[in-house]
Amino acid sequence: MNYSLVIRIVGVLACLMALLLLVPALVALLYGEMSELRVFLQVAGPAAAGGGVLLLLKRGTGFSLTSHDGFLVVALAWLTMALIGAVPFVLSGAIPGYTDAFFETMSGFTTTGATILNDIEALPRSLLFWRSFTHWLGGMGIIVLTVAIFPLLGFKGLQLVRAEAPGPSVDKLTPKIAHSAKILWMLYIGLSLAETLLLLAAGMDLFDALTHTFGTMATGGFSPRNASVAAYDSAAIDAIITVFMLLAGVNFVLYYSLLTRRFDNLRRDTELKVYLGIFAAATLMTTLVLFRTSYDSLGESLRFASFQVASILTTTGYATADYLLWPTAAMAVVFLLMFVGGSAGSTGGGIKVVRLTALFKQGMNEMKYLLHPRGVFTPQLNRAPLRKSMVLGIAGFVFLYLLLLLITTLVVALSGSSLLTSFSTALATLGNIGPGFDAIGPTENYAAFPDWLKWYLSFIMLTGRLEVYTILILFTPRYWQK
Amino acid sequence: MNYSLVIRIVGVLACLMALLLLVPALVALLYGEMSELRVFLQVAGPAAAGGGVLLLLKRGTGFSLTSHDGFLVVALAWLTMALIGAVPFVLSGAIPGYTDAFFETMSGFTTTGATILNDIEALPRSLLFWRSFTHWLGGMGIIVLTVAIFPLLGFKGLQLVRAEAPGPSVDKLTPKIAHSAKILWMLYIGLSLAETLLLLAAGMDLFDALTHTFGTMATGGFSPRNASVAAYDSAAIDAIITVFMLLAGVNFVLYYSLLTRRFDNLRRDTELKVYLGIFAAATLMTTLVLFRTSYDSLGESLRFASFQVASILTTTGYATADYLLWPTAAMAVVFLLMFVGGSAGSTGGGIKVVRLTALFKQGMNEMKYLLHPRGVFTPQLNRAPLRKSMVLGIAGFVFLYLLLLLITTLVVALSGSSLLTSFSTALATLGNIGPGFDAIGPTENYAAFPDWLKWYLSFIMLTGRLEVYTILILFTPRYWQK
Repeated sequence: MNYSLVIRIVGVLACLMALLLLVPALVALLYGEMSELRVFLQVAGPAAAGGGVLLLLKRGTGFSLTSHDGFLVVALAWLTMALIGAVPFVLSGAIPGYTDAFFETMSGFTTTGATILNDIEALPRSLLFWRSFTHWLGGMGIIVLTVAIFPLLGFKGLQLVRAEAPGPSVDKLTPKIAHSAKILWMLYIGLSLAETLLLLAAGMDLFDALTHTFGTMATGGFSPRNASVAAYDSAAIDAIITVFMLLAGVNFVLYYSLLTRRFDNLRRDTELKVYLGIFAAATLMTTLVLFRTSYDSLGESLRFASFQVASILTTTGYATADYLLWPTAAMAVVFLLMFVGGSAGSTGGGIKVVRLTALFKQGMNEMKYLLHPRGVFTPQLNRAPLRKSMVLGIAGFVFLYLLLLLITTLVVALSGSSLLTSFSTALATLGNIGPGFDAIGPTENYAAFPDWLKWYLSFIMLTGRLEVYTILILFTPRYWQK
Repeated sequence: MNYSLVIRIVGVLACLMALLLLVPALVALLYGEMSELRVFLQVAGPAAAGGGVLLLLKRGTGFSLTSHDGFLVVALAWLTMALIGAVPFVLSGAIPGYTDAFFETMSGFTTTGATILNDIEALPRSLLFWRSFTHWLGGMGIIVLTVAIFPLLGFKGLQLVRAEAPGPSVDKLTPKIAHSAKILWMLYIGLSLAETLLLLAAGMDLFDALTHTFGTMATGGFSPRNASVAAYDSAAIDAIITVFMLLAGVNFVLYYSLLTRRFDNLRRDTELKVYLGIFAAATLMTTLVLFRTSYDSLGESLRFASFQVASILTTTGYATADYLLWPTAAMAVVFLLMFVGGSAGSTGGGIKVVRLTALFKQGMNEMKYLLHPRGVFTPQLNRAPLRKSMVLGIAGFVFLYLLLLLITTLVVALSGSSLLTSFSTALATLGNIGPGFDAIGPTENYAAFPDWLKWYLSFIMLTGRLEVYTILILFTPRYWQK
């Protein structure tokens, strides 16, 4: 382990955080929130100083990272951001306890959107901005990580994007991380800009448009309003956010294909078809269930159904309706979607569509062997054979994901929560969704959980966000051997 | 498809059912239940006649079955048994509706133990005997099927026993199904005899001892008492049934190893170790949660915890306590166990321990690749390398199992049941467990479900019991192609 390099990268991240904190500081200035302005600067200063000290202590040239050290660096990156990012909430008194502030910030950076706030609107504007901004930064981080960095580091089993994405793989197109990252950031910023403009046109003010865009593009789910997106009660806003949640759940490599007019890549992308197919089927089913039970018109049913389906499928977690009041069949659709998640290479969390598609095809393939034991069959994905090592990697991933889901259910139950609360809390944090069922429904929050559970769930949100393996590997003795 | 042969086998099964119905007829005679005696004979007569007609219609020699036809035959076997076996319940008036009677009988033959009876003790003794006897026959059938028939037919993906079981594989030991079946039946009957004698010694009468043995050895769960095993309130009876549920959940090939003094096979059996490990860990955890919350003494906590853990882990479903009244942490343990199931080659249902073990090892193996991308690692099972094709088969199976679980949740929710009821109904029927949570808790039953759902759940019980693939394959167009 190159500890010196690891420490230097943490130093760089602390300095970066200092810079990023200047953004909400500017917002505080604009809104005349002088005590909050002071808080942001009070955190940015020591963060920069601390980062600088680390950089000076461990001088060296270059940042060439081995894949081995990469796991620790990635975990420390999110941890450093959340540890520092939580401080302004505490110092300003907006979230008095550090546990709560850390949970909220980790929920932000992991694009989960689970909140401990009972009264969101009581917070100063600059802190609400910072809260939503952590989503946007986390989403940007995760796309660069999964599309550009993981493949370059050669992380087998995490290379869903490179291995499964159609056409010119990212590393061929762009030999350097810096270049890949630049393209991805431009796409991310471009889509964010488009959504912000559309939300402005639909009647939101700039603050609300920006914060909701941050929550949408990161598939996060933090809203500055207590009632989430329901606060606006606007069909246009619902439609815009529905579309952009769906867009944020698509593999970003496909946007690059679109830009470079390689339409063939889109046409043969199995994950995209399945993702849109799941959205359409779940929306249709939910609409039919809601029509005449929860809403009088078919249009209204479609509006609320499509929003909620997109919100849960992409693991965003915005709400325009309390689905706990829907008929149980509609609730069951929401529940099922919690097992899916977005596409690989998107900001969406969860197991992800491509993994489920691969395992489905493997299951169907096995049936062919049952009929023709001596045949040779290979499942296809993106019009290419699905390699066995890929399926094995996915099978291992999905199993560990589900195991962690069940263990987390047990851990949450130890706090005395109901079984449904426990299971859906596990689903909602590991899958980076946010809301769940029972005590953590869309109109509830995570405030009532004990402190120890908030720390554990912060760990689970991070583990889910970093594709499980990245975190679990740090707990194997093998990782720390020379 | 050799339809002629399939029809002849159904004919044989109908004749077999006629013979089997003479057993409860004898019980009716012994208890002086003359109208029930008449009912059993009224069903046995036409069953024998119908079976005979089918055999005469499609005359032929031999019953050599291809693996292709085997799927249909196995499904039709269970279906024929349940269709005929349900009739005595209706004709006697014990269960007036045929839907309910079919559900109860399918629940019996699939060793599920889910009941629609509100007052079990109101039934005549001979019908209660028949109800429990379906368990015992189903359990015997499933062991012969998974240990002797599936491997001989060469069902790849269903050969967990042959491929994973230690030492001399069944087909090497016993080249003929008839011989394998004989050994397995003797083991099954021997264990049943032992349990019956012990239950008699513990104070049960012969009727209760026999019916509870049927429910235990088949990991079924039907009890002739409304309060299930709790009716006896005897620590000795609880202990005996706990031990025999555990024994019934063990791979029966291991008993053969024990008989032939091949102790090495037991020592290196990974599944057995994990199975006992799960039992021990879950019992310990539940005992600690129950102590001083639900029970005053550590001994009582251990007694009720170990019984419930064994009952759910092995997918039996007997109850000595209403676990819905336990602290949620103990409920969560029960919930987790519903995802496990017994061992391959046992009468236990569920996903099964060996499959989960294999996927866990695969997941851990992937982490080695993350650290050493150019290494070659192979997970081990039973001190031998785990073949890739085996892991792929298991991954496909587990995925289809979980997919069916989620789809079934949605189907149950369409009836208006709560989300927890729906999900646990799916778990309890697909896993052949019986009781679940909320409206189907251990003191509740399936009576309130609508008729269409009872038919669907009967189908799911059968699908779970026959290792999913066996039934799903019948719905593929490929199966019916020439």
